[in-house]
Amino acid sequence: MSTKRTLPTVTTDPVADVPPVEGFPASEKVYVEDGDLRVPFRRVPLAGGEPPFDVYDTSGPVNPDLHRGLPRLRQPWIERRLREGDTGNRTQMHYARRGLVTEEMRFIALREGLDPAFVRDEVARGRAIIPANINHPESEPMIIGRNFLVKINANIGNSAVSSSIGEEVDKLRWAVKWGADTVMDLSTGKQIHETREWIIRNSPVPIGTVPIYQCLEKVNGEAEKLTIDLFLETLIEQAEQGVDYFTIHAGVRLAYIPLTAGRTTGIVSRGGSIMAKWCLTHHKENFLYTEFERICEVMKKYDVAFSLGDGLRPGSIADANDRPQLAELETLGELTEVAWKHDVQVMIEGPGHVPMHKIKENVDLQLEKCHEAPFYTLGPLVTDIAPGYDHITSAIGAAMIGWYGTAMLCYVTPKEHLGLPNKKDVKDGVIAYKIAAHAADLAKGHPAAQRRDDALSRARFEFRWQDQFNLSLDPDTARDFHDETLPAPAAKGAHFCSMCGPKFCSMKITQDVREYAAAHGLTEEAAVQAGLAQKAAEFAEGGQDLYRAP
Amino acid sequence: MSTKRTLPTVTTDPVADVPPVEGFPASEKVYVEDGDLRVPFRRVPLAGGEPPFDVYDTSGPVNPDLHRGLPRLRQPWIERRLREGDTGNRTQMHYARRGLVTEEMRFIALREGLDPAFVRDEVARGRAIIPANINHPESEPMIIGRNFLVKINANIGNSAVSSSIGEEVDKLRWAVKWGADTVMDLSTGKQIHETREWIIRNSPVPIGTVPIYQCLEKVNGEAEKLTIDLFLETLIEQAEQGVDYFTIHAGVRLAYIPLTAGRTTGIVSRGGSIMAKWCLTHHKENFLYTEFERICEVMKKYDVAFSLGDGLRPGSIADANDRPQLAELETLGELTEVAWKHDVQVMIEGPGHVPMHKIKENVDLQLEKCHEAPFYTLGPLVTDIAPGYDHITSAIGAAMIGWYGTAMLCYVTPKEHLGLPNKKDVKDGVIAYKIAAHAADLAKGHPAAQRRDDALSRARFEFRWQDQFNLSLDPDTARDFHDETLPAPAAKGAHFCSMCGPKFCSMKITQDVREYAAAHGLTEEAAVQAGLAQKAAEFAEGGQDLYRAP
Repeated sequence: MSTKRTLPTVTTDPVADVPPVEGFPASEKVYVEDGDLRVPFRRVPLAGGEPPFDVYDTSGPVNPDLHRGLPRLRQPWIERRLREGDTGNRTQMHYARRGLVTEEMRFIALREGLDPAFVRDEVARGRAIIPANINHPESEPMIIGRNFLVKINANIGNSAVSSSIGEEVDKLRWAVKWGADTVMDLSTGKQIHETREWIIRNSPVPIGTVPIYQCLEKVNGEAEKLTIDLFLETLIEQAEQGVDYFTIHAGVRLAYIPLTAGRTTGIVSRGGSIMAKWCLTHHKENFLYTEFERICEVMKKYDVAFSLGDGLRPGSIADANDRPQLAELETLGELTEVAWKHDVQVMIEGPGHVPMHKIKENVDLQLEKCHEAPFYTLGPLVTDIAPGYDHITSAIGAAMIGWYGTAMLCYVTPKEHLGLPNKKDVKDGVIAYKIAAHAADLAKGHPAAQRRDDALSRARFEFRWQDQFNLSLDPDTARDFHDETLPAPAAKGAHFCSMCGPKFCSMKITQDVREYAAAHGLTEEAAVQAGLAQKAAEFAEGGQDLYRAP
Repeated sequence: MSTKRTLPTVTTDPVADVPPVEGFPASEKVYVEDGDLRVPFRRVPLAGGEPPFDVYDTSGPVNPDLHRGLPRLRQPWIERRLREGDTGNRTQMHYARRGLVTEEMRFIALREGLDPAFVRDEVARGRAIIPANINHPESEPMIIGRNFLVKINANIGNSAVSSSIGEEVDKLRWAVKWGADTVMDLSTGKQIHETREWIIRNSPVPIGTVPIYQCLEKVNGEAEKLTIDLFLETLIEQAEQGVDYFTIHAGVRLAYIPLTAGRTTGIVSRGGSIMAKWCLTHHKENFLYTEFERICEVMKKYDVAFSLGDGLRPGSIADANDRPQLAELETLGELTEVAWKHDVQVMIEGPGHVPMHKIKENVDLQLEKCHEAPFYTLGPLVTDIAPGYDHITSAIGAAMIGWYGTAMLCYVTPKEHLGLPNKKDVKDGVIAYKIAAHAADLAKGHPAAQRRDDALSRARFEFRWQDQFNLSLDPDTARDFHDETLPAPAAKGAHFCSMCGPKFCSMKITQDVREYAAAHGLTEEAAVQAGLAQKAAEFAEGGQDLYRAP
């Protein structure tokens, strides 16, 4: 492990134009402490006699110096573990299986309100992963598993045709402000290495990459020239930098490729198509599959987690749940067991484009074939007909698949299929996925999830406008939309809103009803005592004065 | 029935500033003809040797004169029916139950690609409704039922604090351009009657209202002064104008009201809270319930359909599927049978705010309690925490509830809970709901639904950018997003896109793979012949040259 880092020198300051990130209005950063641990939350003060509300916070330290990178939170923990008996295997799974509760696990337990031993057991079992490269000590530990809060990933990265280091660092900071739990750097353009370095050093969340992209750059785009040695060299380069998980398309086996010939949209995964081209050109089995154990050796040294790529995922509704997709899934299950033999953490990538009635089958099969390793899906989009709105088509699928058991949802921005996301697209994608993930947490019955809905709904009902804004995923937009119709500052204290106006407000009438009911003893309890609703109605019809009964 | 109409005179021309509606790029309006019927579609020409694609079209006649109103398409059909034996009951259900296939049913059959007798039978059975007031002859017939395409409704209307006649007519035209199947005029402000008249005369889709809003205006906002006579008078006023369906909150029974006292958000339906206030003030049963048959008499004379309002729908996740909601649903089922006794068409309104795991129960109970009358739901929103994005939170619930059997989805705009929707919000709401409805059609296995996804995906795979844009729900936005990254006109013919650039495109690699596979006889069929995928892999590993086999 390298102990000191200097950010790469470039002729001009690449982050000179990165704007500061503004915090949420009326919120403050607080830390829940436990011994040496300080776990961040965003605290929202509330009116109406309500206690402040603490929100899970991915945004990282406030106002960091981008040139220095973030504080190295995990550095002492990592160093102590290495001092106290390094076996060469530094994975959280390795420690968990030896019964250790790491600081990362304790941090996560505090963050999610759970028992540290439960965190350890889920990691040991392979049902959850903690992406935490020993060379990314700046990251604030988080966990991906279906017995935890559903997480979301935001993709950033430059391409051959667009973007710069500063823009990508800006997108990273923007994505974590709005709640991205991990970020993937999918850069394929110039300065791949340097861009990644600036991103990792300034990221409070785990960073994922698809190393084959950089490999392909190294062979000048000629897929057939890829080799396992070049691949391993690239893995080490990126692992040294601190990448926390690698998407590796080891399940694209030679025999599955012809199965895609009859598809409507063939192979849409970039990594999948690169490996397919390699396999067919050489007429050989995928080297990522045949040399998988050599890859595991790199992964365990740095604790990089596998994100086993679904190179044959469907790219259209027509291709959903077809044979090549499911054949590859079976191979990913086989590889999961190989990785686990090395105590290397694994999650499994999933589709893609799937109509609603075929979503659950994806999760059920994944859990079965991949032995409950966490599932990490891209959407899925539930229709193909809305380019420009695929954050919505995919948020529908994402919410559902999260409910069914997917542990992390990879966002899709409005620009999907059309262009590269700008900052607005990144935000729109993150917010749509925060909605999907939270809806999934609610549907799964996560004990803490509904507290935020309830707090916001109480604020809404009591016309505490500021509380409603501040508890929402995007207070700025909520406030702006309110002010568009009723801009006067006084209106935010008003006991009505622009939809109905002051004389005609259902919330107000309900309050009247409630007061009336209370004054006349018309409680729910009284109604229940008097029998079921239908029964009660008969009473009322018969002229009996139900509500005056004791 | 009135035969001649003049739009109300006002001092200034209320629609002087309403802009023209631009058509979709590269599309033309076509009519499928059958005898005297001309059913509109939007025809999208395609390249690549593909036949043109016809899209269901709600936009109505091109460039109408707003001062004259739309052509009276249904006028001769209505008049002939009245001449040939008027029983005083003019409902489509009445005709259907007497075995008649009306022109409206034939029109719908052509529009949806179905047998006219099937349309008639579904209407006779009460499983579908055709909202078609005899005084709204301008409407193009459409059907709402779960064995048909899922429909969407857009709400417009002024409020006490905002909006004008011209703005609402503009929103109407905008909503139907983007695909709204019906529009509700929820005006509560000034000139309610006049606004409605301008809307109906210029609407090619059925118009719904909530008559109690106008009643409340007539009693100066004092709910306790409402009477059945005032209500019936208002129904007749609006039925004379041509409103196609009325939301009527007849299920808010006196005995259910105290059940809401313990709720997080009480009664959030405006109509529901108005009736609750009336019931409690007078300590009497809801007059809409007790006088329901008098209401039926008005409905059948004009063929106005009931949209039985869910006045006690939940306004928050905390209140979903609770006792008052389900008690009211039972009453709506009882009222459905009363309406059907009069051959009056009925649909049932549903929530609201429901977490994903409680959505299906809503549909199952509604179908059972309401005897399969069509369900018409508002979203539902699957979480409360995203004001400003409730078109998304609710599109998730809407897609799911549509799949489970809801016949029409009432849109929610990004301004829900915050302010009045402007044109952008109307469009965002409609598009989100077109996505939800189409996703539901796909999941229900509607035979024609996937054709559009397939056509768009083929265009995408073959880099026919213009076809991809033109087949999408919003070609303008798709094109703008594409051009943001790659603006050159040549790029729209390019066989790559901005995400990967020219050298690194998965679609391109797939095409190479496909050509390679074809050249070497590596077809799916060959793979299948050689056994299952796993088997094939073993062959390849064993050095056997699977793919050269005949």
